[in-house]
Amino acid sequence: MNRGIQALLTPRTVAVVGATPEPGKLGYSVCENLLRGGFPGEVYPVNPRHREIMGLRAYPSVEHIGRPVDLVLSAVGARATIDLLERCSRAGAGAVVAYAAGFREMGETGARLEEELGAAADRAGVCLLGPNTPGLINAGRPLNATFFPFRVEPGPVAVITQSGGVGGAIYRKLLEEETGVAYWIGVGNRTRTDFADLVPAVAADPAVRVVALYLEGTERGRGLVAALRAVEGRAPVVVLKGGRGEGADSLTLGHTGSLAGEAAVVRGVLRQARAIQVATPTELACAAKALALCPEPAGGRVGILTPSGGGSIVIHDLLAEWETPLADLSADTYRKLREALGRAQGIVLKNPLDLTTSGFDAQFYGRVARRMAEAPEVDIFLAVFLIHKDFPPPDRDLVELLRITGKPVLAYWIAIDRLSPEDQARRRALEAEGIPVFLLPEEAAWAVRSLSLRGRWRAGRANRLDKGLSGQAP
Amino acid sequence: MNRGIQALLTPRTVAVVGATPEPGKLGYSVCENLLRGGFPGEVYPVNPRHREIMGLRAYPSVEHIGRPVDLVLSAVGARATIDLLERCSRAGAGAVVAYAAGFREMGETGARLEEELGAAADRAGVCLLGPNTPGLINAGRPLNATFFPFRVEPGPVAVITQSGGVGGAIYRKLLEEETGVAYWIGVGNRTRTDFADLVPAVAADPAVRVVALYLEGTERGRGLVAALRAVEGRAPVVVLKGGRGEGADSLTLGHTGSLAGEAAVVRGVLRQARAIQVATPTELACAAKALALCPEPAGGRVGILTPSGGGSIVIHDLLAEWETPLADLSADTYRKLREALGRAQGIVLKNPLDLTTSGFDAQFYGRVARRMAEAPEVDIFLAVFLIHKDFPPPDRDLVELLRITGKPVLAYWIAIDRLSPEDQARRRALEAEGIPVFLLPEEAAWAVRSLSLRGRWRAGRANRLDKGLSGQAP
Repeated sequence: MNRGIQALLTPRTVAVVGATPEPGKLGYSVCENLLRGGFPGEVYPVNPRHREIMGLRAYPSVEHIGRPVDLVLSAVGARATIDLLERCSRAGAGAVVAYAAGFREMGETGARLEEELGAAADRAGVCLLGPNTPGLINAGRPLNATFFPFRVEPGPVAVITQSGGVGGAIYRKLLEEETGVAYWIGVGNRTRTDFADLVPAVAADPAVRVVALYLEGTERGRGLVAALRAVEGRAPVVVLKGGRGEGADSLTLGHTGSLAGEAAVVRGVLRQARAIQVATPTELACAAKALALCPEPAGGRVGILTPSGGGSIVIHDLLAEWETPLADLSADTYRKLREALGRAQGIVLKNPLDLTTSGFDAQFYGRVARRMAEAPEVDIFLAVFLIHKDFPPPDRDLVELLRITGKPVLAYWIAIDRLSPEDQARRRALEAEGIPVFLLPEEAAWAVRSLSLRGRWRAGRANRLDKGLSGQAP
Repeated sequence: MNRGIQALLTPRTVAVVGATPEPGKLGYSVCENLLRGGFPGEVYPVNPRHREIMGLRAYPSVEHIGRPVDLVLSAVGARATIDLLERCSRAGAGAVVAYAAGFREMGETGARLEEELGAAADRAGVCLLGPNTPGLINAGRPLNATFFPFRVEPGPVAVITQSGGVGGAIYRKLLEEETGVAYWIGVGNRTRTDFADLVPAVAADPAVRVVALYLEGTERGRGLVAALRAVEGRAPVVVLKGGRGEGADSLTLGHTGSLAGEAAVVRGVLRQARAIQVATPTELACAAKALALCPEPAGGRVGILTPSGGGSIVIHDLLAEWETPLADLSADTYRKLREALGRAQGIVLKNPLDLTTSGFDAQFYGRVARRMAEAPEVDIFLAVFLIHKDFPPPDRDLVELLRITGKPVLAYWIAIDRLSPEDQARRRALEAEGIPVFLLPEEAAWAVRSLSLRGRWRAGRANRLDKGLSGQAP
């Protein structure tokens, strides 16, 4: 990783240019979030009109700091940011975040200003994030260099977003799913630093288990595809592509001034790069959560056990729409299932396997679940059951299954209301063990669908490797 | 409405057969929920082995109650329920809820048992809900005759569901959206009482503003379509059809023993009946909330105002996938918008209209919003804005807009975390005024899409009426 990106993502010292004690101003929010976020290094507010800001010594300019500054957060306007870049070089800064809007998203004049900005960054030899960006978070540092008061919960997902609004929605849904972020980065106008630079950089961090992108368009498509291919072996990539609909291109053009490709072309390119494409922030969050928590699937075939026909029908419909394969259970598996079912009557042997109300009994459920999850034709196991105070759920059986089989085990809890504090604790405990829990059937379906796609890609590669090896054999 | 359905939905007196003081048993849960749910009429527990249950006098049989019983809740097994029906007639009961499973969902023997059950209900002249049903809620009574501990929040939506699990997911999502139910009814195996009976019955209640169905299949398809057509003028109907995917029919057959039709045929039939079809419980809940809170749209053309390009791109993509029309703004509207924008620079005049960060200013936002919502080519107005402590939102302007224009006004709040208590209160206040608030772009899109479909159907009818009238003119 080059020094600039490192200074951006993992700075030891940060200057806030335009810092101010006046609440409501950008320079206040940025400084406040940095301090509240617990940044462990030195923070240097820069403002010639103040000698102290938020209890810290303020400096009249970056050159006056007199010590090396890794990262400069520019909370000043468009023109002032260009001027600042020249001074950053003299101050030895490694990276600059430019929050200011007023560049190419604002038409011709702005585009010329942005060219100036990029050239100034090149001359200064700094890594430039933005402009027109909400900033970035590195939860491991911790660093909250955004103007949003994010509640930073460290976790396994790296979010890189071309929109603060959509990035915010993704963040919100991840928090709701009890899934934290390792990084959250708004790329803004991508004048210099783009997805192609950031994807490999975040994927190199061992804290990152999944990379989640909200992408509208990029001029460096080849670079992005190369980056996706380079990282997907280590960390799955999930992509929400904005601007899929007809007439969307003109819209995308208006927003950050970048051109987006044809929807079908983009879809094919992403697929070839083994990036999982989703349609909404909720899908992105649910897929990222499942991919982050579960072990890697060896294939894509799904087994579902349920006490509710309806719940599995909704999931089955959504899986069928994406051509996600349900496991075709073998005669041997059916024999074992029949044994486990014992005297339970009227249960039709199939997949999804609907235990009806017998499935409310955790012991019985656990016994049947084991037969299904252990079946060699099942790569991914989804356990549906009811949250009801009278029926303790088979949590321990599921954790054991995960350990025995090494396969992804997911849970969909049929809940009619907010979870009780006890159920919330149980959910956290299961997720800490590596079993993601979802509370709506469609969210479980999106999670399973992403794992299945990942598993089929991996199985395809494994098959090709086998063939390659056998080709070498005598 | 016939006496049986009335006794089922709005009973004055209820008997619980199989009531028991032992927690964990069906007869305990049903009795407990009825009492906790605050049912205002008489409750008669029936169990020959007890003289008192939950502080109430218990009766050895329904005949021993000696007073007329509107509704009998049967918490006993399959065979015992058939025997009970004979006695219900002698006790003068109007309706019976049969929770027991073990009927046609369990194959041949169960199917014969179910025929007996139906015949017994006919002989007894009672309205039969179920069997294999989780029961029903009438929040207005209030009556919680289910075995789930529902937190009953009265509201404008009537939910009728063919699956307890999916019905539970819908309920959960509605509660999360701060939207209560007027009714929640599990139809179970629909031996006698089916969607065709219940849809007109609930739609006749003035408390019901929207009917939301989870439907797998029905043998009384014509009756259902007639019912949908009959009610949609008064209350919009939203349908989640389970069993859309390939191979789903065999699955649907396994669950409640009913046959579902071809997906495409069902889609066409629902559309002709002016029922809005959705794909997930979340979509159903968001559509129902919007249709319940908003005034009826006069057409389907959508105007969107946003401070976030990305947020509106995600919404635009989803609307385009459903062919939901964005309003084509007129020259006159553009002129008025340009006036309202004043000196704000670089904003590209289009729909969705992206104000960028200028849109964080509530006063400016309100001024522009008014021009857009008042435009005659805009039938539905979606206001996107940011939830951030430094930027008070334009709530009052939106309420005024709703009053002035009489058009649906919806809000999507870009929020990065759970709402603060103050923001929650603001959300409730806006929704009390008739402005639904959504917290994810896809949820706003689903709401807008349903309103737009409704508006286009209504506009089509209005046009036909106009033509009919002009045909009469001299």
